[in-house]
Amino acid sequence: MGFTGIHLARELLAEGEEVVLFQRRGNLPSSASDLQGKVSIASCDINNWVQIVETVRKHEISTIYHAAALLSKGCEESAFGGFRVNVEGTMNILEAARVLGVKNVIYVSSGATYGLHPPAKVYDDTPQKLENMYATTKACCERLGEQYHRQYGINFCGARFAMVVGPTRQISYHYGDWSGVIERAAQGMPYTVHSNPESPCAYIYIKDVVRALVDLKKADQRRLRRRIYNFHGFMATLAQVTKVIRKHIPDAQIRFDWDRSDEMKLHNNALNYEMDNAATFADLGWKPRFLLEEMVEDFIQEVKRGGAD
Amino acid sequence: MGFTGIHLARELLAEGEEVVLFQRRGNLPSSASDLQGKVSIASCDINNWVQIVETVRKHEISTIYHAAALLSKGCEESAFGGFRVNVEGTMNILEAARVLGVKNVIYVSSGATYGLHPPAKVYDDTPQKLENMYATTKACCERLGEQYHRQYGINFCGARFAMVVGPTRQISYHYGDWSGVIERAAQGMPYTVHSNPESPCAYIYIKDVVRALVDLKKADQRRLRRRIYNFHGFMATLAQVTKVIRKHIPDAQIRFDWDRSDEMKLHNNALNYEMDNAATFADLGWKPRFLLEEMVEDFIQEVKRGGAD
Amino acid sequence: MGFTGIHLARELLAEGEEVVLFQRRGNLPSSASDLQGKVSIASCDINNWVQIVETVRKHEISTIYHAAALLSKGCEESAFGGFRVNVEGTMNILEAARVLGVKNVIYVSSGATYGLHPPAKVYDDTPQKLENMYATTKACCERLGEQYHRQYGINFCGARFAMVVGPTRQISYHYGDWSGVIERAAQGMPYTVHSNPESPCAYIYIKDVVRALVDLKKADQRRLRRRIYNFHGFMATLAQVTKVIRKHIPDAQIRFDWDRSDEMKLHNNALNYEMDNAATFADLGWKPRFLLEEMVEDFIQEVKRGGAD
Amino acid sequence: MGFTGIHLARELLAEGEEVVLFQRRGNLPSSASDLQGKVSIASCDINNWVQIVETVRKHEISTIYHAAALLSKGCEESAFGGFRVNVEGTMNILEAARVLGVKNVIYVSSGATYGLHPPAKVYDDTPQKLENMYATTKACCERLGEQYHRQYGINFCGARFAMVVGPTRQISYHYGDWSGVIERAAQGMPYTVHSNPESPCAYIYIKDVVRALVDLKKADQRRLRRRIYNFHGFMATLAQVTKVIRKHIPDAQIRFDWDRSDEMKLHNNALNYEMDNAATFADLGWKPRFLLEEMVEDFIQEVKRGGAD
Repeated sequence: MGFTGIHLARELLAEGEEVVLFQRRGNLPSSASDLQGKVSIASCDINNWVQIVETVRKHEISTIYHAAALLSKGCEESAFGGFRVNVEGTMNILEAARVLGVKNVIYVSSGATYGLHPPAKVYDDTPQKLENMYATTKACCERLGEQYHRQYGINFCGARFAMVVGPTRQISYHYGDWSGVIERAAQGMPYTVHSNPESPCAYIYIKDVVRALVDLKKADQRRLRRRIYNFHGFMATLAQVTKVIRKHIPDAQIRFDWDRSDEMKLHNNALNYEMDNAATFADLGWKPRFLLEEMVEDFIQEVKRGGAD
Repeated sequence: MGFTGIHLARELLAEGEEVVLFQRRGNLPSSASDLQGKVSIASCDINNWVQIVETVRKHEISTIYHAAALLSKGCEESAFGGFRVNVEGTMNILEAARVLGVKNVIYVSSGATYGLHPPAKVYDDTPQKLENMYATTKACCERLGEQYHRQYGINFCGARFAMVVGPTRQISYHYGDWSGVIERAAQGMPYTVHSNPESPCAYIYIKDVVRALVDLKKADQRRLRRRIYNFHGFMATLAQVTKVIRKHIPDAQIRFDWDRSDEMKLHNNALNYEMDNAATFADLGWKPRFLLEEMVEDFIQEVKRGGAD
Repeated sequence: MGFTGIHLARELLAEGEEVVLFQRRGNLPSSASDLQGKVSIASCDINNWVQIVETVRKHEISTIYHAAALLSKGCEESAFGGFRVNVEGTMNILEAARVLGVKNVIYVSSGATYGLHPPAKVYDDTPQKLENMYATTKACCERLGEQYHRQYGINFCGARFAMVVGPTRQISYHYGDWSGVIERAAQGMPYTVHSNPESPCAYIYIKDVVRALVDLKKADQRRLRRRIYNFHGFMATLAQVTKVIRKHIPDAQIRFDWDRSDEMKLHNNALNYEMDNAATFADLGWKPRFLLEEMVEDFIQEVKRGGAD
Repeated sequence: MGFTGIHLARELLAEGEEVVLFQRRGNLPSSASDLQGKVSIASCDINNWVQIVETVRKHEISTIYHAAALLSKGCEESAFGGFRVNVEGTMNILEAARVLGVKNVIYVSSGATYGLHPPAKVYDDTPQKLENMYATTKACCERLGEQYHRQYGINFCGARFAMVVGPTRQISYHYGDWSGVIERAAQGMPYTVHSNPESPCAYIYIKDVVRALVDLKKADQRRLRRRIYNFHGFMATLAQVTKVIRKHIPDAQIRFDWDRSDEMKLHNNALNYEMDNAATFADLGWKPRFLLEEMVEDFIQEVKRGGAD
């Protein structure tokens, strides 16, 4: 029931699917109050086998979209914690799928597996370069999922995204600018950008993300040449993004206060690569619907409609 | 306390080290009775955290050589079982090392990570191709170990070997010929080879293997350009091996009954690749001491001296 | 698939039930070859959640008879090991029952929970006195099972037996005489009794044990005043047992070599108590069919028919 | 770092001990800001073996006071969750103590193990009557701790308390009145009592609780006749408590709105028993310092001094 889960739930509901949101505890956030009464909510710790089995059985689940993970910060604090949640958690999902006959497991992986200094353009088969625990766990899960496909025939597919943006995405210091500058502007709030305003970033809009996940699930198995695909939206700098924002909100209070530290440089660089979409389009028919202009416009409208924190 | 562990113990004792052998249960096999009284034995299940911590503390262990794994067959029977023993077991070793200050973790990985149809020559950076659960777990452990080196400074190093042979190696139908033909001949017993007698195989002798592990531990850290190295002995066919055996044992009862099934072909092919040793020699100073002739001679002598099952 | 499991399988088959035997690994022992083809065998580690869930689902199991445990010796070697197998294992069974709707869980507990110096007569509500890890784990499991009955309505019932004897029971030094003297005599083998020949012991024959378990399962719930019952066979000394053996096998080679050590005295004393069967008979209609004479006669016949190791 | 932990930390600091507070996450609550800088805080999940081992080693801990538990409500929601936190968590503590040589484990058990309809007076050896999962887990932990004392010589001692009150205790509907009425009055806030105002309750003040735990740790081992003791403060009704409050705060806004439901009656009854302190005084020299009058006075003063939420 994180950022991706909530947006995915909306897409699936629109398609007429029944949706069960897994969460560790608590209720729907206020920004997702539109889902109240339309989705089931299962109190489910990914490290608790019993709860997963119980939930899958109770709701006769046929597809699991798996986006639960301890993110970079948590993995840096404790590699073992990251392993438990991300890798053991994924194994629990895969085993539940195997034992209970869940047909599809669609996994949200990450472009972070291409490393902190990715090449200018990455293809689906560009060798991954794991440089932190988060990326390490994501790559291990990709391998384990592929193996469950080979060994047990589970329809495991994974998606690698670069910088996902959209309403209610968490706004952190090093990775938050790309989504935050639009969300805050749309809310009429001031925002200070600390990233390099001219550093290009591989963007993808959350609506294209959830469509990618659904397309992976629906894919014609005979056409899939691999189990993990890259999904790329478009390249843009924060300066370019800001320009588009101002077309819609001329008085947006956006300030640039470039943090030239090595750490910020590292994080900005890690996003500066283009993903190739050719195989994704050929095999899945997927291409991004939201490029820079469309993304900013829709993002702003969604926030104004109420879908922000 | 498997095949590698026993041979490694002999090497370490010869170097004046104190050795603790980890085992799930039971006693030294009769073929290792020479170790009786010279090594400590710890009853230790790799999935039991407490036992690992207890053993490491009690013996003030400073280096862990980690060769415990569920092999291909076990991993095929249950992917989850393979994950638990191989991946969770390795995480337990890494965490014990981190928490208790164990300096070195030397890991036995596998050339099987290059896939069932490896290229003619593999280098340390040849992309791995995981095609079964055993190889998948080995590759995950390599990545996790590298990460523990990055994140916590543990001296994790791994070694990939192709076909390891030597006295007391388990003789299985699909992978046993390479070691079995020599061991049985040396014991004066008949042996039937079912593999393709002309299929080349990447051999390495157990004595070169244990030296590789010790060299990894002693390596000058500044010269290491990577954490995982390939160690290659030599290429030979079973026909060539048999010829050398007959030089020493002219009346060896070796019969060839080639199993031309697809499965045997697959297994034979999976061993038909050469590993490049250039980086290994440059960084570690290691090169094989036992090529075909030396290996067969030493193997036969060892068996006659009593080191076989 | 231990001693109780095998005998229980025979009883259940005779009643027309379908039987699945759980085991960690391996095949039916030769003494149980009569079951070949009549029962299913599930490779199932009680500490492996997945395997339990998988087996229960695959066979649509409606009753679990749970007799798997690490015995006294294993618990003394490692209390944590005993906890994992006995307590965590039982929780896995209870949770599988809850989540998958298994109706009945029939648990084999132990008279050892009355302590090493039990009173002359114990009733169902005699306070338990836990003096070693084995008894501690058995009592914890009784409490947890009762709670699952209260909280989730699972039909959990437990049975406490004193000294269970019958063909193929393991013959250990401190607890083996009571079964061993009969089994070896029936096999025409010599046997040396080390226990005090005049120390009375609370016996129960394995056929009465398995009937007790089946009766617990079939019990009219409205008549049960408790979830755990004592089941008592009869009191006898080894001298008395020997006398009856000699009626059937006059030349039985039984030697008495009384070990007067404190440890043997302790073990002999721990068995010297009578269990009250009044509530068991009132609530379940169960009473022992095999008293001393009948037990020895049947035991000898069974061994001769082939049911021994 | 719950209610008991914080108050215990103050007592231990006053005695000159070094204190490490275990917590799952987060910081000291504002009511415990006086501890800032005086205690160490360890991020430690009781179900995470590694973190416990790491913390015990880092701080060379010689005594663990173990008060961490999932309370009644959590145990009712999930018996398995209660087992994991309460029983497996305690086993982790006991094993860490065994392996790392921690001398003392002082455990906070509960008078709830005497059942929902306790006798008028309970003694240390009154048989426990487990009627919910919380009490079941507490009793299992008592037994396991006693066993670790027997088997490994760990100085495990446990304390059973009835209704513990004091500043910052959580105020819940069914169990909160006894502490809440005093805390809110002292804060100048209104409070509505829903319990039966004339139902007597076995009270103990938090300051007597922490002294009990420390006395258990310091006890002369030769005088201990058991490992678990009851600690009783005094009997009082809420009407009596209110009367004493009004002596200090004449205008306290306390309203009585008796909930005569069966559930409230059950909870009130469950607290209506007296504990015998004779053995506790004889073996430990402990007796309560805070009876009704002293407790109310001190509680009010502490709240006014700032020790409330």
